[in-house]
Order: sequence, then C-alpha cells, then structure tokens
Amino acid sequence: MAVNLAGVADDSLAMAMEALGQRARAAAGILANASTDAKNRALRAAASAIRADAPAILAANRRDLATATGRTMTPAMIDRLTLDDRRIEAMAVGLEEVAALPDPVGTIESVVTRPNGLRIEKVRVPLGVIGIIYESRPNVTADAAALCLKAGNAAILRGGSESTHSSAAILAALATGLEAAGLPGDAIQRVPSQDRAAVGILLTLDRYIDVIIPRGGKSLIQRVAAESRIPVLKHLDGICHVYVDKAADLAKARAIILNAKLRRTGVCGSAETLLVDRAVAASHLVPMLADLIGAGCEIRGDAETCALDDRVLPATEEDWSTEYLAPILSVRILGGVDEAIAHIATYGSQHTESIVTEDPEAAERFLARVDSAIVMHNASTQFADGSEFGMGAEIGISTGKLHARGPVGVAELTSYKYRVRGNGQTRP
Amino acid sequence: MAVNLAGVADDSLAMAMEALGQRARAAAGILANASTDAKNRALRAAASAIRADAPAILAANRRDLATATGRTMTPAMIDRLTLDDRRIEAMAVGLEEVAALPDPVGTIESVVTRPNGLRIEKVRVPLGVIGIIYESRPNVTADAAALCLKAGNAAILRGGSESTHSSAAILAALATGLEAAGLPGDAIQRVPSQDRAAVGILLTLDRYIDVIIPRGGKSLIQRVAAESRIPVLKHLDGICHVYVDKAADLAKARAIILNAKLRRTGVCGSAETLLVDRAVAASHLVPMLADLIGAGCEIRGDAETCALDDRVLPATEEDWSTEYLAPILSVRILGGVDEAIAHIATYGSQHTESIVTEDPEAAERFLARVDSAIVMHNASTQFADGSEFGMGAEIGISTGKLHARGPVGVAELTSYKYRVRGNGQTRP
Repeated sequence: MAVNLAGVADDSLAMAMEALGQRARAAAGILANASTDAKNRALRAAASAIRADAPAILAANRRDLATATGRTMTPAMIDRLTLDDRRIEAMAVGLEEVAALPDPVGTIESVVTRPNGLRIEKVRVPLGVIGIIYESRPNVTADAAALCLKAGNAAILRGGSESTHSSAAILAALATGLEAAGLPGDAIQRVPSQDRAAVGILLTLDRYIDVIIPRGGKSLIQRVAAESRIPVLKHLDGICHVYVDKAADLAKARAIILNAKLRRTGVCGSAETLLVDRAVAASHLVPMLADLIGAGCEIRGDAETCALDDRVLPATEEDWSTEYLAPILSVRILGGVDEAIAHIATYGSQHTESIVTEDPEAAERFLARVDSAIVMHNASTQFADGSEFGMGAEIGISTGKLHARGPVGVAELTSYKYRVRGNGQTRP
Repeated sequence: MAVNLAGVADDSLAMAMEALGQRARAAAGILANASTDAKNRALRAAASAIRADAPAILAANRRDLATATGRTMTPAMIDRLTLDDRRIEAMAVGLEEVAALPDPVGTIESVVTRPNGLRIEKVRVPLGVIGIIYESRPNVTADAAALCLKAGNAAILRGGSESTHSSAAILAALATGLEAAGLPGDAIQRVPSQDRAAVGILLTLDRYIDVIIPRGGKSLIQRVAAESRIPVLKHLDGICHVYVDKAADLAKARAIILNAKLRRTGVCGSAETLLVDRAVAASHLVPMLADLIGAGCEIRGDAETCALDDRVLPATEEDWSTEYLAPILSVRILGGVDEAIAHIATYGSQHTESIVTEDPEAAERFLARVDSAIVMHNASTQFADGSEFGMGAEIGISTGKLHARGPVGVAELTSYKYRVRGNGQTRP
C-alpha cells in the first residue's frame, strides 16, 4: 500500500484511513451507551477467545519472530515481541481483571440545584475514539483495547510493524468477544497499513479521533507531539530521582535506592539519579554505593562521588537527563533539600521522585515543591504504577499536566458532560 | 520589533520571548506555594488599584480608540474595545468576586491507604504557566489574569493590538496588587510585542508554558490549533441547538427559543439552529416563527419551514454549521428525536443543546445521546455559563473533551499530583 508511485496509492491509504475513522466514530456512539454488563461480557468472552486461539496467536507470533531475526533488533526487543503460553494467559487474565473493575461511565460527580430550580449534574462519559500508537509488545493490543472498551471508547490501534501478525491474531480474539456481547466489531480496529505515512494521516483525523496516546520511545513521542492535530496524552520518559536527605534513616535509604534502581530497570518508574545531602555522603552514600556496585549497577557520579569510591565513573552533563532503563545510576552530592528540588526542576521529567528522610519538614517541603506527577516520602519510585495505586490496570504514566497526570487507568480514559434538567427556565 | 530586516530583530524577539517564559516559570514556582490569603490580598489590592487608576486606564483606552477609528473595525468591535466608568467598576468587582471564590489548590480529592501501608493522596495543584491569547476586549486582561492567579498559575497574556494601551494600564494595576501581597510581578505578564510572529514563538515555548487558551474568532483558534506545540484548551464556536419535540409544551417551547436566540445574540450559548418535530410544525413552529420574526429575528428555514411562513428565507447547507452571533436563526423540520440527534452530530460544535419535551423518555434519550459539553431539558441554552452553573467567573466554555469540558472556572485551571507517604516501603 501507499507506495507513492503516482499519488494513487497514497490516495487509497488516505481513503482507507478516513473510512477507519468513520467506522470508529460510529462504533463509539454505540459503545457510549452500552451497558456495563455488555462491556464486561465482551471482555470475558475475549479472554476465552484468547485462550481458545492460543495456537493461532503463537503461530502468528512465530511468523513475526522469523521476520524479526532478519532485522536489527536487540535481545530486549526480541524478548518484548515474544509470546508464550504464560504471556497469553496473562493477557486473558488481564482482560478479566479489567472486566472486574468498576465502570466509571455514568458516575455522577456532582449535582447542584440552582436557585432557579435548574438541576445540573456532572456525569462521566467516554472520551470517544482513542488512537494508541505503540511499539513492539503485542500484548499492548489486548491491554490497551480492554481499558478503552471498559471506559466506553472505541480504539484505533497502531502497533509496531514487527508485531503485525501477532497483533492481528489478538485482535481477532477481541472481535470474537465484541461479537459475543452484541457490540460493534469496529469498536477495536487496527490501522490497516504498516506504512509510516499511515501514522501521519492518523494524526490528522481530528474529526474522528478525540485523543492520541503514544506508548514508546522518545523519537515516537516526539514525532507524535510535533505532528498531531489531535490532543495527546503524553507518556514521556521517567527520569526518576531518589533524594537522600541529611536526616535519612540509613537502612531505609539503602533498601529504597536498591529497590528503586534495580528491582526492574526497564520500567519508567525506576530511579535514574540518586541525590545525596553532603552531610551524609560518608555515612550513607558510601554503603549505598557498595550495595549498588555489588549488585551489578554501574555508577556515574559527580566529582565528590568519584572521590568516595574509585569504581565510580565520572558523570557527564548529559547523564543528569538520561533515562538509562538499565543497571546504571547517576549520583550527585549536594547541599540539602532545596538544591535537590532545584536539580529535579532542571533535569527531571515530572514523573516520580522520592525523598528519604526522618525530618517531616524536609519531607513536606519536597512533596510540596517538586512538580512531578508522583512525589513520595520514604518509598521506592518503583511503586509508580496504576495497580500499586489501587486503580487496576493502567495504560501508562502521564507526565503531562492536562487531563490526566500519573497513572492513566479506566477512569482517566473518560470525560464528562453537564446534564441540565429544567422546567421551562429562561435566563433573565 | 521583529521587523525581519536581517534576522537580527527576529532574534531579539525570540530572546525576549524566551526571557518572558523563564520569568513566568520562576513566578509559577512561587505562586504554586503561595497561601490563599496572599492570592486573595493581591486580587483585592488589584481591584483597589483599578479603581484608583481609572483615569489612567480611561486615558489609555482613549488612545486605543483614537487608533481604532482609523482602522476597519465594526461598531461591535469598537464597543467591545471601549471602557467607561461602569466597565472599570465591573472589572474591579470581578477581581473581588474571584477573591471570594474557594481556592481549589491543596484540596485532597481522594486518599487511599494501601495494604502495604502506603498512603496515597490525590491533591489539586496549579497547572503552572497559562498562555491566554484573546482579541479586542481589554477587560479580559483583568478577568483572565484573576482566574489564573486564584488557581496559583502564572499567566502570559496576549491581547489584540487594538487594545494594547488599555491592557498595559490594566496590567499596571494588577502588578500593584501582586506587589501589595508580596507576590512576584512576573506572575502576570504581557507578550512584549504586538508582532504576529510573537504569537508563533509563544506557541513553541512548551518548556515554559503548560497550556494555551485562545479566546476569539475561528481564525485565531484555528491558527493556534495548527501551530501550537503546547496543549490547547479549545473554545470553539457554539452552534447551539434547540430541539422542539412532538411532546413539547407550547408555552415552554415559545419562551425557551425566544430566550435562547434573542436574550443576547453575541454569546456562545445563544441558539443558532431550531429543530422541530414534523408532528408539531403547524401547532408549535408557526407561532414560534411569528414570535421570532416579530422580535426582529431573521429566519433561514428548510423547504418545509419556508412553506409555513413566507417571511422565512431559504437556508443553504452552510447555514446548518454557521454560528451567526446575530439575530438570525436556521430552522429545520424533521422526524423526531433520533433525527434531531443525528442532525446535531453532523452540524453541531459539541457546545450546548436543549430538548423541549414533556416526554421523559425522549428527554433521557436526547441527554444521553447528544455528545455535547452541556445537554439540557426544558431550559434555555443561554444558561451555558460558569456563573449560572454556580462556578463563579469562567474563562470560557471548553468544547474539547480533554481536561475540561463546558465552563472553565478556577477549578478547571488546576491539575493534580499524587503525594505518597511511606515508611521505607520497597516493591516486591
């Protein structure tokens, strides 16, 4: 498709994308008024279909993997692309868990009766049509679609080209679920072309799509931000900080930084920079460095940190704004909570930051003045996760301030409207 | 400035805009932690300063008007630009009313304690820096700045070039208020150049500005949507509909359409299209047309409507998507509530629509299926207004679905963050 030989193929792609948007919009109108029960039945039937279709999904995945090995993919990318029985079961369970979540649609957030007798209700409604652009993990097809569906939204999915067969097979199972519940199959669709131009067209379909959620690396997110005419829910990098204050408990500091950095290094809530008050560099940072290096973590420190342990490599200016997603940690020694707040304001990504201290005043200052989606006191940044917040599944962590900040779950995939009931009132 | 002779002047504009953004960001950091009392003192002191500075503000306004008469401005534009003692007093009262509103910042929206002991609070915080681009009315300078300030945000204002002296004089009074309360004057700034290029630069300052709110005509809003790299709170046109159902009470229908269309024709909540069920065209529409035409309203109808009254002009396809903001109404006869819902979905702007009916089923169907910010039953669309909703002042009506929908008041100018309090928890 869209080979751009004489403009003809491009026109056909544009027409296909237009039709895709129209179908999604029509499905969204039906889904917005679907019952909670129908949506839950669709999710549970989709879970059954994923289990029943496991052989077909695995076969499709093997086709993707066969193509992938011929490309330049890192072992981590191959791992993210690979499905097995366990991952397929996890997808099915994920769908059932979303079915079990409360339905935000129809919730009345507030109601006022005005002196003139007008009754004004603020009620949760779906966003409408959500476009999700993601990279290699094919299970995002099921996870993201389930959250959109539960919130009453139609979804248009655009996965990475390397997972195209896997995603198609998963989508077929989701379609079975929608059909079983009498809901329109167009409620969950894939972009029909892997052409890069298809994403460009998608980002212009503001007549049909209400919000775009990009999930992937920096270059994808930047492209979407630059090109999109549709509002974007940003999921930028997580350059998360742990600040160890002069009043920090040593045992808590050691446990928190080890967990925040190394529990899993590939998640956006993993710590990338450790800031330490100069007053406890000798007492606290020295044993923390030994712990981390002993656990296989590379340390890139400022000059003062390098002087504490000769296994520490010198950090460059770039290190302070780098999301490693790897067992690497940048470390800086500074003069107290205000300097830590200033460092985070300069280099952070407004994701998640934690202070370790027994001083309530320092803690409150940090929590109030660090302008991030999640601010923590004496806890690991790895708790930055919708399920750990009690929200159930999440589509990611929003680092923007508009609409949704922090974990984006089912409720964050809704909007609201005002329902006004009168008895013939006119405005004076 | 920015005369673009050799790129030099443009560079100086870009540098001035960069400095403007930096100052606003720094001020926002202070404002975010300012007390409610300090913000309210600033607002009340600004109101006093506006009253005290009235002669200077009126003199500045006369300079703007002297320039304006040499331009091609309509009488309505001249009227919007003109200040007098009454309008200056209204601005001062407006500031005092915003001071009296509750402060949303610091409100805890929810709190959960997780099984692991983590206490997670969702707390309201300011958005940060808000850019407001508006057209001729100079009082927007005070109104918009007051709402931003109350919500703890810094504001960058860009008014129309025709009101430049008036806006500068009003800003001076606001600065007096900020100073009196010990708050940074940079919390409310104006774009230093009236050059069109300044808006272009403003829309790229996503390092400093969190949200752009355009208030003005369609061409301004479209330019902002196309160029902005910063999230935009859309205030699009209000193509508001009244649908008179076959079960409508005649007296209510007559009163509501007269009020919805003619109370004020220049506001976004005024009705632009009347839809009538064919079953009551003779009984209801005929007297409604007589009322409207008798009150000086021009009617543009479909063929069936034209046949009812020979004073009705034929509507074109374009009429159905036109926001007249004038005593003109388009009228269409159709076959019931579902056709009305379909018409609104095709031609509406998702602002405000009202059904007139005594049939609760038809009413609920309309309220559920019309996808607009505000849906009404038996009430005039002119109630689409923050103060009528009990929210106090508003900056406008958002027709987008992300972040804020419907009236945008102080609370809608905030975001939230999660504050997590632990005791050394690490994630298993």
